[in-house]
Amino acid sequence: MKYAVGLMSGTSLDGIDAALVKMDNKEDKVHYQLVDFCTLPFSEEMKKKITNSLSIEQSNVELICSLNFELGQLFGEAVVEICERNDMASSELLFVASHGQTIYHQPVPKGQFVASTLQIGESSLIAEIAQTTVVSDFRYRDMAVGGQGAPIVPYSEYLLYKSEDSQRILQNIGGISNATIVPQQAELQDLLAFDTGPGNMIIDELCRHFYQQEYDASGSYAKLGQVNEALLTELMAHPFIEKTGPKTTGREDFGEQFVAELLTKYDMPANNWIRTVTLFTAKAIAKALAPYLTEQTELVVGGGGSYNETLLEMLRSEMPMVKVLIQEDLGLSSEAKEAIAMVVLGHQTLNKRPSNVPSATGASKAVILGKITYY
Amino acid sequence: MKYAVGLMSGTSLDGIDAALVKMDNKEDKVHYQLVDFCTLPFSEEMKKKITNSLSIEQSNVELICSLNFELGQLFGEAVVEICERNDMASSELLFVASHGQTIYHQPVPKGQFVASTLQIGESSLIAEIAQTTVVSDFRYRDMAVGGQGAPIVPYSEYLLYKSEDSQRILQNIGGISNATIVPQQAELQDLLAFDTGPGNMIIDELCRHFYQQEYDASGSYAKLGQVNEALLTELMAHPFIEKTGPKTTGREDFGEQFVAELLTKYDMPANNWIRTVTLFTAKAIAKALAPYLTEQTELVVGGGGSYNETLLEMLRSEMPMVKVLIQEDLGLSSEAKEAIAMVVLGHQTLNKRPSNVPSATGASKAVILGKITYY
Repeated sequence: MKYAVGLMSGTSLDGIDAALVKMDNKEDKVHYQLVDFCTLPFSEEMKKKITNSLSIEQSNVELICSLNFELGQLFGEAVVEICERNDMASSELLFVASHGQTIYHQPVPKGQFVASTLQIGESSLIAEIAQTTVVSDFRYRDMAVGGQGAPIVPYSEYLLYKSEDSQRILQNIGGISNATIVPQQAELQDLLAFDTGPGNMIIDELCRHFYQQEYDASGSYAKLGQVNEALLTELMAHPFIEKTGPKTTGREDFGEQFVAELLTKYDMPANNWIRTVTLFTAKAIAKALAPYLTEQTELVVGGGGSYNETLLEMLRSEMPMVKVLIQEDLGLSSEAKEAIAMVVLGHQTLNKRPSNVPSATGASKAVILGKITYY
Repeated sequence: MKYAVGLMSGTSLDGIDAALVKMDNKEDKVHYQLVDFCTLPFSEEMKKKITNSLSIEQSNVELICSLNFELGQLFGEAVVEICERNDMASSELLFVASHGQTIYHQPVPKGQFVASTLQIGESSLIAEIAQTTVVSDFRYRDMAVGGQGAPIVPYSEYLLYKSEDSQRILQNIGGISNATIVPQQAELQDLLAFDTGPGNMIIDELCRHFYQQEYDASGSYAKLGQVNEALLTELMAHPFIEKTGPKTTGREDFGEQFVAELLTKYDMPANNWIRTVTLFTAKAIAKALAPYLTEQTELVVGGGGSYNETLLEMLRSEMPMVKVLIQEDLGLSSEAKEAIAMVVLGHQTLNKRPSNVPSATGASKAVILGKITYY
């Protein structure tokens, strides 16, 4: 039996997601099965360092150089931990596939800067600590052929979610939100994917601001608030909302600075803020998806946002013809989805097979993603 | 016949060194032969960007993210160019091995920062432009096992320079200077290597300051100056000079800031400055090598410093028992040495064989260096 660990460390900075995945060959196809999943939270100190590394003002070469190694160490320890929990030695793994921590993503050229992306969390340290081969750096190769380096998960979504009976839209709601559209009986080239706008990013920022809490658990603050129409109108006029896919966004568009500016413009109770931006998040998703909805559409929501019941309710109300599910409704795991996707991509890399989806990223062709670090 | 291209972009920032190397199997050993070599100079604009990326004050995540891609593009173009000059398509290469541009190197922990290193020049772009497999990021894996990530060339020096008749010291004088000691009839584990101090870095900085020239061609300024003993004494008291190998240094110790501070302390003609720091460079090397010199020692000087005749004369005078040669005296190429070394290391990586030298870097064990990016 072959095992691998996928590591994901998302824009929400809540920690390192590790998925232990079993790989079986069945009828000439690889079947990926989740064995275990855990999230190792970052310490406050580490979160602060990462936040500094994301910031043009606070970041510098010394910090980035060191943090790459520090995160590699933590990623390696996460691999060892999930293996120990399952009575395995990490050296028995076929490989580890690590996404890395994105500290910058510039999908299109900007001024003197070229389109580029930067993930850190040194694979050499992961390889040493886990004593196995590591595949990492999945986004770069797609950008080298004109892609936006995102979304990165459509290939695995195709493999894991394709349905004969309905169109499925995989709607991930992490720090930002992104969708992959897998048409009924799709071929790989039929996939379409794009960022749909902010995910929990604005909601979380406001929860920190008003409540010193990291997120709106179950959407309970949003449930109690009232919508401020003026703010909602302003948010819906954001240039990103108007664009059509493939498009990408990030902390640059909807992060701390964006929220800080908003907060100077309106004065209202905390829960009204939170409800309004939660509705904005739902409306941004609905607007981005509108051109693609069919009568047989299942919207499978994943990511931290799938636990926000107010947000789910809003999505149902904004798209009444759509069946809104969460990953767990399909017997899958919302939390583990992206970490599992890394395993699928890493496996492709080791077999010298492409795993970007040009129709999703805008790349000029399919390419082999990632870099291999041997133990 | 198998060919590969090695790419080196050193701390001197003079451009991209590209070596086209032919690989033959002879008596179960690979024989590496230099076919062609060229240096593609950086534009002033690129040099400025790199200089900014090296600086704690000027660097930030946006610049580093973009520059990684910009340099990858230039590295890829360098591969295509050297192949075209030799009527080859770069897609025929077995691989490209790229060192990358070091923008930070912290060999030991410092305050809140861990020992770490950072090279940029995205391999994914090199792979796309050159249409072949790329091996890159050679220093990281050594640091993951406690090595200083430097020196990186000893393995290839062992392969290329081992002599039955004498001890050979490969003395590279680039921006910084480093030595590899290859004892007579050495085995790999007998090698010793360490940085010997500044190379041309201080000399070049002063040439820029006084003459707006990039370096002291042939050492002609140094030849005309007089030594300032007070400055020389101060320089020889630098903490790095006292340390014994394995040790590493870099722009952090002897770069722009170091020179700017020195310039405030002494007032004298330009050539006296240049002669004094040239002698310091020679004395630092001689002091670092002193414990290892034998009666059968050949010092093979490489790097830009091997063209500085005043510096060579000083080395001969500081170490009278040693035969001081330049690479060309052995029918080799001083300029191409490090780029050739990358090919040797990359070849090892693709064959899953180690190529660090723990006795040189201080690593706890031999490991497979580098990361592989497939085309």
